Amino acid sequence: MEKVEFVKVNNFSAGPAILPQEVFEEASEAVLDFQGIGMSILEISHRSKEFQSVMDEAVSLAKELLAVPNGYEVLFLQGGASTQFLMAAMNLLGDNDTAGYVETGSWSAKAIKEAKLYGHVNILASSKDDEYAHIPKGYDIPGHLKYLHLTSNNTIFGTQFHEFPKTAVPIIADMSSDIFSRTIDVDKFGIIYAGAQKNMGPAGTCIAIVNKEFVAHPVRTVPTMLDYNTHIAKGSMFNTPPVFAVYVSMLTMRWVKKNGGVSHMAKANQDKADLIYNYLDNSNLFYGRARKEDRSKMNVVFLIKNQDLTDSFLGVCARAGCSGIKGHRSVGGFRASIYNAMNIDGVQTLVDVMSEFERTHG
Amino acid sequence: MEKVEFVKVNNFSAGPAILPQEVFEEASEAVLDFQGIGMSILEISHRSKEFQSVMDEAVSLAKELLAVPNGYEVLFLQGGASTQFLMAAMNLLGDNDTAGYVETGSWSAKAIKEAKLYGHVNILASSKDDEYAHIPKGYDIPGHLKYLHLTSNNTIFGTQFHEFPKTAVPIIADMSSDIFSRTIDVDKFGIIYAGAQKNMGPAGTCIAIVNKEFVAHPVRTVPTMLDYNTHIAKGSMFNTPPVFAVYVSMLTMRWVKKNGGVSHMAKANQDKADLIYNYLDNSNLFYGRARKEDRSKMNVVFLIKNQDLTDSFLGVCARAGCSGIKGHRSVGGFRASIYNAMNIDGVQTLVDVMSEFERTHG
Repeated sequence: MEKVEFVKVNNFSAGPAILPQEVFEEASEAVLDFQGIGMSILEISHRSKEFQSVMDEAVSLAKELLAVPNGYEVLFLQGGASTQFLMAAMNLLGDNDTAGYVETGSWSAKAIKEAKLYGHVNILASSKDDEYAHIPKGYDIPGHLKYLHLTSNNTIFGTQFHEFPKTAVPIIADMSSDIFSRTIDVDKFGIIYAGAQKNMGPAGTCIAIVNKEFVAHPVRTVPTMLDYNTHIAKGSMFNTPPVFAVYVSMLTMRWVKKNGGVSHMAKANQDKADLIYNYLDNSNLFYGRARKEDRSKMNVVFLIKNQDLTDSFLGVCARAGCSGIKGHRSVGGFRASIYNAMNIDGVQTLVDVMSEFERTHG
Repeated sequence: MEKVEFVKVNNFSAGPAILPQEVFEEASEAVLDFQGIGMSILEISHRSKEFQSVMDEAVSLAKELLAVPNGYEVLFLQGGASTQFLMAAMNLLGDNDTAGYVETGSWSAKAIKEAKLYGHVNILASSKDDEYAHIPKGYDIPGHLKYLHLTSNNTIFGTQFHEFPKTAVPIIADMSSDIFSRTIDVDKFGIIYAGAQKNMGPAGTCIAIVNKEFVAHPVRTVPTMLDYNTHIAKGSMFNTPPVFAVYVSMLTMRWVKKNGGVSHMAKANQDKADLIYNYLDNSNLFYGRARKEDRSKMNVVFLIKNQDLTDSFLGVCARAGCSGIKGHRSVGGFRASIYNAMNIDGVQTLVDVMSEFERTHG
């Protein structure tokens, strides 16, 4: 194959999203010949020693990077967070049980919908009336709740929990869009789940970090594939796993480790967020949408004072190689997703584009 | 990137399994730069026009290749056939309904286990007492059954339905290991489902071809992700689809089309099966395991008269570049999976290895 020549775009897409360039390069080679064995990563048996070694390393890296304590298991599943919405409730929420949910956006609303099929849902707090522009705080968390469910980062509305509620109730968290972006105290959580396609890997797998005791006894009869214990017992290989998605996730976790681990990612993410939010706070044309103290360090959602300039700005971004800037249809405006693999030069490029646009259109 | 030099192995693995070399090459390039857009297929948004076009083409190719009639939809889901075992029954089998199941191996047994969670299961026929070495025939199919479930090809035991039961009852078929290997009359089926990782693509997606009327009214309240109608309404994009697995499946379907479609695959598969089964029928050392009239054209399961030679033969295969020949642990012996992408030269290589082994060890 000839060397592929291309101009690399700065990808600000909310997800599937940017991954490290060296991960793309290694994955591309593995699609032709995996580790020199004369077969593609796409054709090897998931029961081969080569893939078992990939799965083992993926689990081990996730445990190391997130300091997962004993008593927890790391699973690589399919069906994304959308399947976890129902799987968590199906396993844990009995007909007469109550779970607490914090509603901070579309994803938590979807999780609430599925939980209502199984038991009582107490919406402890919601920022819906504020169009999800902040993270609720200071609500009561009754001690009898089976669990407290929250979405740690809201891709659409650009808000993020910077502190998790202090409670003895086990927390179930959808961390799809900020896992591996910062350190977390895993032992506060009963289940952490996350679709891979932001900071962890490509679309097609979902990590679940489960407290084994918390999930050990499903409250009802659940189908084999929807029982966490099935996947714990079989090391995420009860059925054919999504081989390539797990492999690329493993490569991405290797990259996180090589680059200083999650604490270094957190620092770099802070620097990137500071760069763009500082610009927004000093702009006369653009402004951030979310309440300042709840701003996401992953998804910077911003608006423009003169909405007639929206398409013009998107055109300038596209020509400057800044892709995926258009805001979600339910919010409008713009969104710059600055996940782990986006380096500060990419963010600087976008800020430069915004500055120049403001200078010429402001 | 330098040209990757390697000796290509003949991959007889049961699955994940061999795919066409040109698919690996195109997929490898797309991981670096998809269609020259400066981004990897792994990082583009599933809502991008580029991926929408991939999904549209995948659906369209599946419909064309299998002559899917009006009234059916083609879905690309996650969770594999193992999730379809429960999803089909959850949607279609009411508490007081009865479904018929034909038990022809481990996979149908697993489907039966999940269906029993939802309604009555009538095992119409089973080859379990024969260690699944044949496909049952001539059993009654009561007209009141909600559906008849069968596994069209049995990877582990090397048997295959060469004719499907004639009945007015809608058939639900797990075609994981022989979809796209032969023409089928889709209108006999209520649902056809298949994990991709044999003839269709890499592990990580599952095709479901559903009769829309048949699945229109789930018999109970089902979670959003487990309702076929969710995925029909959203064109398999209710949640983030497994982008890369769908893309590689689309490339593989393009290859099938370019190479004469499913009818040509069927002819080539017949030739490959004839080659190896004819050798087995004339061998004094090796012999086929399944009853002749039910032999699989996908998975050739064979045994050796002198079992002490098992490891020696596996060693010879490995040195000859024939990979994945070891039989499933529940059957022993050997298995050569000869899916669409295995060409007859690969099968000839294996037959030559067997002949030479027999000459020197027979």
